Amino acid sequence: MQIGIPEGTRDFSPAQVVRRNYIFDTIRRVFVKYGFQPLETPAMERLDTLTGKYGEEGDRLLFKILNNGNYLADVPADLLDKRDSSGLTSHISRRGLRYDLTVPFARYVSMHFNELAFPFKRYQIQPVWRADRPQRGRYREFYQCDVDVVGANALMHEAELVQIYDEVFTALSLGVVIRINNRKILAGMAETAGIADQLALMTIAIDKLDKTGIEGVKEELARRAIPAAAITHIESLLAVSSLDELREAFANSALGIQGIDEVEEVLGYLADYPAGNVVKFDISLARGLDYYTGCIFEVVVDAQRHPDLKMGSIGGGGRYDNLTGIFGRPGLSGVGVSFGAERIYDLLEGSGLFPAEDPAALKLLLLAFDDTSHRFAFRCLREIRAAGINADLYPTAEKPKKLMKYANARQVPFVVLIGEEECNSGLLSVKNMASGEQSKMSLQSLVAAFS
Amino acid sequence: MQIGIPEGTRDFSPAQVVRRNYIFDTIRRVFVKYGFQPLETPAMERLDTLTGKYGEEGDRLLFKILNNGNYLADVPADLLDKRDSSGLTSHISRRGLRYDLTVPFARYVSMHFNELAFPFKRYQIQPVWRADRPQRGRYREFYQCDVDVVGANALMHEAELVQIYDEVFTALSLGVVIRINNRKILAGMAETAGIADQLALMTIAIDKLDKTGIEGVKEELARRAIPAAAITHIESLLAVSSLDELREAFANSALGIQGIDEVEEVLGYLADYPAGNVVKFDISLARGLDYYTGCIFEVVVDAQRHPDLKMGSIGGGGRYDNLTGIFGRPGLSGVGVSFGAERIYDLLEGSGLFPAEDPAALKLLLLAFDDTSHRFAFRCLREIRAAGINADLYPTAEKPKKLMKYANARQVPFVVLIGEEECNSGLLSVKNMASGEQSKMSLQSLVAAFS
Repeated sequence: MQIGIPEGTRDFSPAQVVRRNYIFDTIRRVFVKYGFQPLETPAMERLDTLTGKYGEEGDRLLFKILNNGNYLADVPADLLDKRDSSGLTSHISRRGLRYDLTVPFARYVSMHFNELAFPFKRYQIQPVWRADRPQRGRYREFYQCDVDVVGANALMHEAELVQIYDEVFTALSLGVVIRINNRKILAGMAETAGIADQLALMTIAIDKLDKTGIEGVKEELARRAIPAAAITHIESLLAVSSLDELREAFANSALGIQGIDEVEEVLGYLADYPAGNVVKFDISLARGLDYYTGCIFEVVVDAQRHPDLKMGSIGGGGRYDNLTGIFGRPGLSGVGVSFGAERIYDLLEGSGLFPAEDPAALKLLLLAFDDTSHRFAFRCLREIRAAGINADLYPTAEKPKKLMKYANARQVPFVVLIGEEECNSGLLSVKNMASGEQSKMSLQSLVAAFS
Repeated sequence: MQIGIPEGTRDFSPAQVVRRNYIFDTIRRVFVKYGFQPLETPAMERLDTLTGKYGEEGDRLLFKILNNGNYLADVPADLLDKRDSSGLTSHISRRGLRYDLTVPFARYVSMHFNELAFPFKRYQIQPVWRADRPQRGRYREFYQCDVDVVGANALMHEAELVQIYDEVFTALSLGVVIRINNRKILAGMAETAGIADQLALMTIAIDKLDKTGIEGVKEELARRAIPAAAITHIESLLAVSSLDELREAFANSALGIQGIDEVEEVLGYLADYPAGNVVKFDISLARGLDYYTGCIFEVVVDAQRHPDLKMGSIGGGGRYDNLTGIFGRPGLSGVGVSFGAERIYDLLEGSGLFPAEDPAALKLLLLAFDDTSHRFAFRCLREIRAAGINADLYPTAEKPKKLMKYANARQVPFVVLIGEEECNSGLLSVKNMASGEQSKMSLQSLVAAFS
């Protein structure tokens, strides 16, 4: 038998878990400082919770759990006769794996509406599963990091989310550009172009500006039968960089003006905030998802600071007006963003930005050359650990060569060599594995030096 | 539509996540101090990895993932005609959810054998899924916390695992009894009773001693056709409390003597260890699982220290000789224990042992009475957060009553009230929510007081 794991899934080795946790812990620390609270939902949701929330494509990509027991007992015969897989699914599966964290969050808020105090600020860092075709950087099990406020319209929260992005990426030493736009500005653009009813179509075209350039956007708009005059108007607006300039162009669009006001209010909150990253209004930011209704955000690597790093968006989000409507609780506004943790991992790894020092790493490895020394070493080990130092002892007395080979494999910064001489004198030989330097010290000094 | 989550699964509210993380973090901190490294494996495993590893019952309780796409296309017709659910499963599902952490660990070690340095010390804290009938304290999704050393026979590791149990439960303020026995002692018992070939049967009977008492064990043994003389012998051995006494009784069992030697060596390692809990040899400890071959462990609440707490085992484990044999890597010995995190949670909650202070909790909530004050408050908030204090601001200016209601719901220890007076003077009103006490201080003093 050839052993393995399912396609698109990963084992995380100790070194990888440590690095992943560095990212998650950094994000979590900032979330908590901003008053967000953790939520965790089950991996499995009822299929009636998940189905129909992600479009046809999403429904197809849901991982469905086979019912247990004699699941074929009550299945309509014609489905089996016709081998109708898609018809059969709802008869033999009533649960699926979480596809994102937004729908479970909406489901949770709807279920617990009466117990929650609004604004409810929650973060959620958990894996999701999608039956996508695996490819480089795309997995069937991956983590999402979401942070949302629901039950508040105030634009202060938009400003907080920008600050959170700024703080997290500053802490991770990754220079980014945080782009802000507003769906109402895009609506104003469609309105003033005379294509208000084709907003979604226009948004999808603009969303591709980064990839295809302005010519690509214009071609797509033309292909979608947008009038030439409208395309010219959109092109001129996409070239606008200041909100004041835009305000003039939107003289006849109340919605557009409202979008400008909202972005200005958010930027106003940030006026005296000493951001470590570029925060900028970007009229071409569209974000595909249909449910955004107000401010939208996107984070990309700052090419000025990291000219070698190539990567798409590493974060995004926005304001939505009806998170829980699908679960019978209409009218609850919210705003949230997410962090693309898997991409951030690749960036930090590719650019050597992970910290060299891991607080959970082994600090000392004791090595004993004979049985008496080993018993002595085990007692020393206890004292060292009692002081809170991460330490270990090779489990048996061995020849130096074998012990040093293990020490190298464990990548420990210091080893403590213990033989007859050390037992007798009580002075331990401590060796710096990087420099090879060796010195003698008492157990007490050793504990003091590494505490 | 009635919204809900699958039977046997749970949402964890912010307060619950915080308490669960308190347990996991405490356990993790001790694991790391003892030189263990984290491992994470995917939620989904290939069914050929999982099937046949947990007995017939286990196979039934695996959650299986339905293949995507047109999964019925190549299914043998007779399985559909006969509605043969169990026959069909392997044709429409090739993945299942992790049932425990041991099989994925064995699979990982087998796959990465040549890259690992042995002894390999790993811990793993992840959810597992079982299609068990849900009942009080038994869930279909629950966390396991496992810690194992593989590739080392040394009994030092058994001693370390006892120390880990002791340290974790001391840190959690839960008094426990850590029971130790050895499968070779049970083998010696069967051997000297003349029923060496019925060891498994005897073990299962003895395992029930806690529940049924000695009479129950004797009845079960008699029902299993164990001769009366053997039962009398077993009863007399179960009454033995000292290893010396047992050594005499095992004069004719080399295996039994070896078991005693092993337990003595482990206890020898712990001789001068200042345990905060009771560590004791218990000849009646059997642990049902067949694959243990050496020392076995079990942790129960210390009834002397917690007379009101009723709970079964909250941890257990032991030495096994062939973890990875099922994956083609025979002869790799290991020893490991696990923590019953879900039960520990219930115990800590039931006895008020969770710490009152949560380091990730909100420390300050700012409340503003008018728009000007709100803008001032947002700037104060930034300074407070910049000092690393977890703080929040109600997103809009409101009447005091509404603001205080929210402050109560957030369970924040202190609020900062900001109105016209505070804006003008720069002195903020800080209110202790527990005592009602209120005082005025500058932003600088506030930051200093809460940093």
